Amino acid sequence: MTCAVLSIGTELTRGELVNSNAAWLSASLTDLGFDVPLGATVDDDLKRIVQELERLASFARVIVCTGGLGPTTDDITTQAVATLLGVPLVRDEASLEHIRRRLAKFGRTVSETNSKQADFPEGADILPNPIGTAPGFSVRIGNALAFFMPGVPREMKQIYEEQIVPRVRALAPNDSYQIRLRTFGLPESTVGERLAGVEEAFPGVILGYRATFPEIEVKVLARGLSTAAARELCERATLEVKQRLADVIYGEADDTFAGVTGRLLRKKEYTLAVAESCTGGLVGHLLTREPGASDFLLVDVVTYANSAKTRLLGIDEEVIRGHGAVSSEVACAMAEGVKRVSGADVALSLTGIAGPSGGSPEKPVGTVFIAVAGPGGVKVVERHFPGDRHMIQTLAAYVGLNLIRQACVTST
Amino acid sequence: MTCAVLSIGTELTRGELVNSNAAWLSASLTDLGFDVPLGATVDDDLKRIVQELERLASFARVIVCTGGLGPTTDDITTQAVATLLGVPLVRDEASLEHIRRRLAKFGRTVSETNSKQADFPEGADILPNPIGTAPGFSVRIGNALAFFMPGVPREMKQIYEEQIVPRVRALAPNDSYQIRLRTFGLPESTVGERLAGVEEAFPGVILGYRATFPEIEVKVLARGLSTAAARELCERATLEVKQRLADVIYGEADDTFAGVTGRLLRKKEYTLAVAESCTGGLVGHLLTREPGASDFLLVDVVTYANSAKTRLLGIDEEVIRGHGAVSSEVACAMAEGVKRVSGADVALSLTGIAGPSGGSPEKPVGTVFIAVAGPGGVKVVERHFPGDRHMIQTLAAYVGLNLIRQACVTST
Repeated sequence: MTCAVLSIGTELTRGELVNSNAAWLSASLTDLGFDVPLGATVDDDLKRIVQELERLASFARVIVCTGGLGPTTDDITTQAVATLLGVPLVRDEASLEHIRRRLAKFGRTVSETNSKQADFPEGADILPNPIGTAPGFSVRIGNALAFFMPGVPREMKQIYEEQIVPRVRALAPNDSYQIRLRTFGLPESTVGERLAGVEEAFPGVILGYRATFPEIEVKVLARGLSTAAARELCERATLEVKQRLADVIYGEADDTFAGVTGRLLRKKEYTLAVAESCTGGLVGHLLTREPGASDFLLVDVVTYANSAKTRLLGIDEEVIRGHGAVSSEVACAMAEGVKRVSGADVALSLTGIAGPSGGSPEKPVGTVFIAVAGPGGVKVVERHFPGDRHMIQTLAAYVGLNLIRQACVTST
Repeated sequence: MTCAVLSIGTELTRGELVNSNAAWLSASLTDLGFDVPLGATVDDDLKRIVQELERLASFARVIVCTGGLGPTTDDITTQAVATLLGVPLVRDEASLEHIRRRLAKFGRTVSETNSKQADFPEGADILPNPIGTAPGFSVRIGNALAFFMPGVPREMKQIYEEQIVPRVRALAPNDSYQIRLRTFGLPESTVGERLAGVEEAFPGVILGYRATFPEIEVKVLARGLSTAAARELCERATLEVKQRLADVIYGEADDTFAGVTGRLLRKKEYTLAVAESCTGGLVGHLLTREPGASDFLLVDVVTYANSAKTRLLGIDEEVIRGHGAVSSEVACAMAEGVKRVSGADVALSLTGIAGPSGGSPEKPVGTVFIAVAGPGGVKVVERHFPGDRHMIQTLAAYVGLNLIRQACVTST
């Protein structure tokens, strides 16, 4: 069952607003089991709105539209629908009364511009808006069932949930199932190579990839004769995918890399301390963006200046002078130092050159030393990351968190 | 001159990703002076991609497309364009060599899936991608000039700025001039109210707003008979806008809030120390995401546990026990403590409840105490931020940076 989303508004076509409504609606319709192959955005222009509706109605059975139902002159969606259907606008007294009561709450009376929001194409099915003045409505356009809602996200979402879902749910096939796997450690192309042949081995399964630097999400979508059949197929294919990617899969669905690392620390009942330099607080930010980091995170000391490394972590100035702030010796001293001053079970440290300047032939931009001090002593790795400052900082933070993950998994 | 934006990717049509690329491109093209009446989003389906390109080419003179240039099997944009034009794919040795060199940096060799990214429709104009493996390309489709870029925002933006703008600028009516002002501190609706009447007072001026939480960018776009006339009009209107928004404008164009704060510290030759709790390193991350923070930032101590507040900042346990970790007393002690241990000129501290749990009737989620210790002593503010954990952390970090900015501006 094919579905299309149409977003109406010049503020969208001019890019003054990011179209989060379209993403929200597309995801909701996909979850219901609809196929949503395309979406469109059009400005507040009567002719173009009519054209887009005709085009979408030519192949979609359900069209969900937002925007252009406001009281101002540039809101012409309702007029465009009436024009397309060749019917007059009819004022709905119940809606007008609702608008009147709503405005009265704000001590206002109904003006002609407000009354406009109670006009609908003749024969339209009106969708009440309990939290705004503009009701939505629904009409048939050829074979398509078209729904129109205001663009205000909270009004749109409530009308969708209360009025549209009950009307369209029965139209959606319940024949698909999806599992999303989250990976870190391999580039998208290598992930793709490792999974070559999976779609052929499991007919009905489609693999999707989504790169959100530095992670790659792998989506296993299965279609079958029933949800149960699709789910069974999806789970079998996912097993195969997991075997091929074993070492790089860190979680599923909405897991986050830092969140999973935190769960492991919690499970081990380890407390963590972090000492950052080139990552400037990014490790702490990633860990504390998730709720509950206070269960394990004691402190994150961003010792940006050498004086801070000495004053707060008690690192011998000689070590810094002798080996340089970016060295395995200083990385180890930072990890041991922050472990000591905080009394944490595990400590992570990062020191490197994020660029754009500060590199040298021996230690080029991208050089990062990462150390983990744990129950089993200190371990340090030297890495050379590609890319710009942002990429180097992000990769360093992820590799650091990955060392913590491994320490939790391997330690007994 | 009409322009259309096409976003390609099943992750978009299924709503797994909010299409921020389309908004960014639409705004940039509008800024260049193009008319962007509509946009479209299509899944990774060869037939539909071809159909959409044909449709857009029937009325738009410039088509800007993103997505589907990755190395995996679901990336088929290039193939779709070749099919539409009825030309073969031709491998570009220069691009292949670029991919080879890039992958070598990661210690990897070029596989067949990577090589695919060096294939282009015969006759295509290749658009180099200095920060990724997938180059963009450009072809003529009927009367339209079509550009194709990867969907990764950073890569897309760089290719657009370096390769596409120079190729299309001449096509845009050359009679507009724009100034972008960056603001923090007022909601979009209030910014709009403060600027009510400016468009009427300056005929030819259009005000645009772009909200990127928690900032509001105000765009003053002027059209005139010549660029010079447009510029003169734009500058006059901008003066008026600046007067009305004075206190909330922190910079222009591509300034960042943390970058401007850093510039002020550098100018004052102040060193900075930060002590964070509920923001978990976000302040340090924002400051060090910009190059050159080492000029002023000595240390950022994220004292997440109370023990860390005592052990690293020397805060009296009695103060924490007596007033609670989230209190003006502890905020002041944190600022004074980190100033003392680091020897910095100015110190910022933040302690609060970011949620979702941990709130109480006296100190609900969103309560944050922010202190600044400077040459003139300590100043502390109590704020109550709305929204979820992410919003509360971001607003707290911004308000903290704002106090530093004010300290730099006011101190003599």
